Amino acid sequence: MILCDIGNTSVDLFMDGKRSKLSAVDFDPSIVQGDVYYISVNTLLNERVQKLTNWYDLRVFIDWDKYYPTMGIDRIMVCEAVEDGIIVDAGSAITVDMMQGGIYQGGFISLGVRAMEDAYARLSPALDMSFNFEVDLAKMAKNTPDALTVGFLAPLICKIESLEKPVYLTGGDGRLLSRFIPEAVVVEDLIFQGMKKLIEKGVKC
Amino acid sequence: MILCDIGNTSVDLFMDGKRSKLSAVDFDPSIVQGDVYYISVNTLLNERVQKLTNWYDLRVFIDWDKYYPTMGIDRIMVCEAVEDGIIVDAGSAITVDMMQGGIYQGGFISLGVRAMEDAYARLSPALDMSFNFEVDLAKMAKNTPDALTVGFLAPLICKIESLEKPVYLTGGDGRLLSRFIPEAVVVEDLIFQGMKKLIEKGVKC
Repeated sequence: MILCDIGNTSVDLFMDGKRSKLSAVDFDPSIVQGDVYYISVNTLLNERVQKLTNWYDLRVFIDWDKYYPTMGIDRIMVCEAVEDGIIVDAGSAITVDMMQGGIYQGGFISLGVRAMEDAYARLSPALDMSFNFEVDLAKMAKNTPDALTVGFLAPLICKIESLEKPVYLTGGDGRLLSRFIPEAVVVEDLIFQGMKKLIEKGVKC
Repeated sequence: MILCDIGNTSVDLFMDGKRSKLSAVDFDPSIVQGDVYYISVNTLLNERVQKLTNWYDLRVFIDWDKYYPTMGIDRIMVCEAVEDGIIVDAGSAITVDMMQGGIYQGGFISLGVRAMEDAYARLSPALDMSFNFEVDLAKMAKNTPDALTVGFLAPLICKIESLEKPVYLTGGDGRLLSRFIPEAVVVEDLIFQGMKKLIEKGVKC
């Protein structure tokens, strides 16, 4: 069984426990042999895979009443992987979602590391600088890079910890965030774990 | 005594307990009669007021060792107004600073309402929407506008409340934020209170 997460810029394949990331532009879905279970936000590639009989859209497996109609498919998948806990997916956005007894409790969306740095820079040339990930979030800052890093991360971590549940970190910046949430577990393949769980259930969850 | 806060787009005058906001482009500082104590981030207007003998720059009154060199002058002024507490100045950026016994303890910088909405919109057309300020921040969200609003405000409020000090709100969105921090005091003229306090001390503070 092959799992596939089709984004707008990259295609993430998971087979035999191994992950490989390919460029979405060059990707030819017809060369993949065997059954492929996929999620996709890429409308162009969608059209092509829908014509292939060995590609199965996981969208139809989802019980949408459990989530909400405009919720990202990738966000739903990481939630499906967790029975009880907070799921933090740190990519271009940082999504924070809560699961309890396998039921979705809601969540929120923050800006990702890059989007936040860009937004500060756009606000003022004086705020155009990189974050300092060595900063101590427990302290109030006394220089600009620290003030921006604390402003970005301290509120977010404060809110996540206030939810008092096990925290699962995933996404490109999951490991980076784990520095600041020592009790959190980093699960890089959480999205594929969610996809697998959904397939194994085999029925609407 | 006239107090003046010169920004890049507007000039904020405070005299006889009344505040008036003027456009920075049209502003002619030479027409103002009497002593004017000012702060400015506007380099063009700076050159003009420096030639006038009745305009006094409050920059020289500040003991910069208490703050940090790149800290905004307006941010220092609102801090000067408060002996003990958290000062939240909600403008294009939201600055959060802590004072204790009249000594600056540090702070952090978050994005303002507009900057945050713009940054979400830039991330994805699916996130291009207005905040819902009627949202209950205690709940995790189950639709996109709420997920963005909770993502912006719940972490920020969580961090501010975790500091366990009296909260003073000021700036254009101070009153808006006060909906979510019921115990906070809104002080619209906090910057002028700080300027006044600094002048009354009359010596380096």
